Amino acid sequence: MRKLFVIGIGAGDPDQVTMQAVKAMRRVDVFFVIGKGGDKQELVDVRATILAEHATQPHRVVEIPDPPRDRTVPARDADTAYRSVVGDWHEARAELLERAFAETDGVGGILVWGDPSLYDSTLRIVERVLDRERIHFDYEVIPGITSVQALAAAHRMVLHDIGEPLHITTGRRLRDEGLAPGHSTLVMLDADCSFTQLEGDDIYIWWGAYLGMPDEVVIEGPLRVVEHRITRRRAALREAKGWIMDIYRLSRRTP
Amino acid sequence: MRKLFVIGIGAGDPDQVTMQAVKAMRRVDVFFVIGKGGDKQELVDVRATILAEHATQPHRVVEIPDPPRDRTVPARDADTAYRSVVGDWHEARAELLERAFAETDGVGGILVWGDPSLYDSTLRIVERVLDRERIHFDYEVIPGITSVQALAAAHRMVLHDIGEPLHITTGRRLRDEGLAPGHSTLVMLDADCSFTQLEGDDIYIWWGAYLGMPDEVVIEGPLRVVEHRITRRRAALREAKGWIMDIYRLSRRTP
Repeated sequence: MRKLFVIGIGAGDPDQVTMQAVKAMRRVDVFFVIGKGGDKQELVDVRATILAEHATQPHRVVEIPDPPRDRTVPARDADTAYRSVVGDWHEARAELLERAFAETDGVGGILVWGDPSLYDSTLRIVERVLDRERIHFDYEVIPGITSVQALAAAHRMVLHDIGEPLHITTGRRLRDEGLAPGHSTLVMLDADCSFTQLEGDDIYIWWGAYLGMPDEVVIEGPLRVVEHRITRRRAALREAKGWIMDIYRLSRRTP
Repeated sequence: MRKLFVIGIGAGDPDQVTMQAVKAMRRVDVFFVIGKGGDKQELVDVRATILAEHATQPHRVVEIPDPPRDRTVPARDADTAYRSVVGDWHEARAELLERAFAETDGVGGILVWGDPSLYDSTLRIVERVLDRERIHFDYEVIPGITSVQALAAAHRMVLHDIGEPLHITTGRRLRDEGLAPGHSTLVMLDADCSFTQLEGDDIYIWWGAYLGMPDEVVIEGPLRVVEHRITRRRAALREAKGWIMDIYRLSRRTP
């Protein structure tokens, strides 16, 4: 049975790979890079650094271009429509991965930013390839450091109050559902600074961008005090670099 | 300024340490092991393996015994009482860490299971030591793989439905607050199999124990179908080994 490794490689710092990830990478004959076109050059460089440093055996890298995605249905639309569009796009990616896997030999590997379990579509695509039943293989998941942990480390914080929950959500959900009391909220995938739409003077924010990379920036403070500093800084960084990846924690209690 | 590293070392698999953690361990002159008495021999062995493999420079290991904790206030009691007890216990630990740090020289290091940001008290204790202002140092946090990611990897799953939130909570909170609809719930620190107290036929569970260790066990299925299998298996494993560490994900949607 052919084998595929889905390997979490951390949030942007090449040193965030685990020994387990290194050992898995060394067993891979062919790495599939899905959707490289959408990645920023700095992230492509980090991934190349990781491969050059650790995948010292002979290996191939096969790029799988992203299929077009129907962007006419915005993410904030009805969930059903959104999920259907995402489903079609996953199926198109699954077809491309299936073909690339069939055309190659040996152990396969896919490197995933952060961890494959959090806001990443790789595992859903791999399951679709298996469900299509045209090729057969076993796969193994290697966990990786996520931007959630990178944010916590950069701020040197525990993500929740003692004995309290942590809620991880998206910018879209934060806008729709607001901030729940009594727990910390971690917001990912927010291109719209949705924190500015929250009401209340008792919210604290811990924000970070480019976590684990040389350009890492963190800002924290009472939301009403620092929100404009964050939005201005975020816009300036995005303008200067051409892209941004950020994440933040919100809590109704000030620390 | 003296330096202290707080280093996440993963959920139980020695290979889950990151390259960043390895590099930090190599800079440490004295490792502080807090509360070793409460740790199980297998976990002590994993930590010893990690140190032996990576901390190849000369270094000391200083054990800091756990101060007694007032167990007469049960965790499920009023939050304020519980937090006060935990606070006293953190202060007692802070005093012991302060003394140990003051009595040694060089770069300090504390190894933390999982990641220091999730249900771990090390950072709260370190902040207390700094707040006491008797010794001065700078500290840095190195993120680690948590049992949340280890559970997801073992089940080869994404932890949430597309675009939906992930809620991380405790067994106590699950009993008090039930399962919220529309998102996945990850339950940690549950010694009481609180999932058996949930109502409904539409709940799915992904459970795992000793994740990343040779004795790793995973069970998944509709909650009403597998709950007794999990409770029996959990009791038998705990009986046989003398301890158990487990975690699970619940979702109201069947996959």
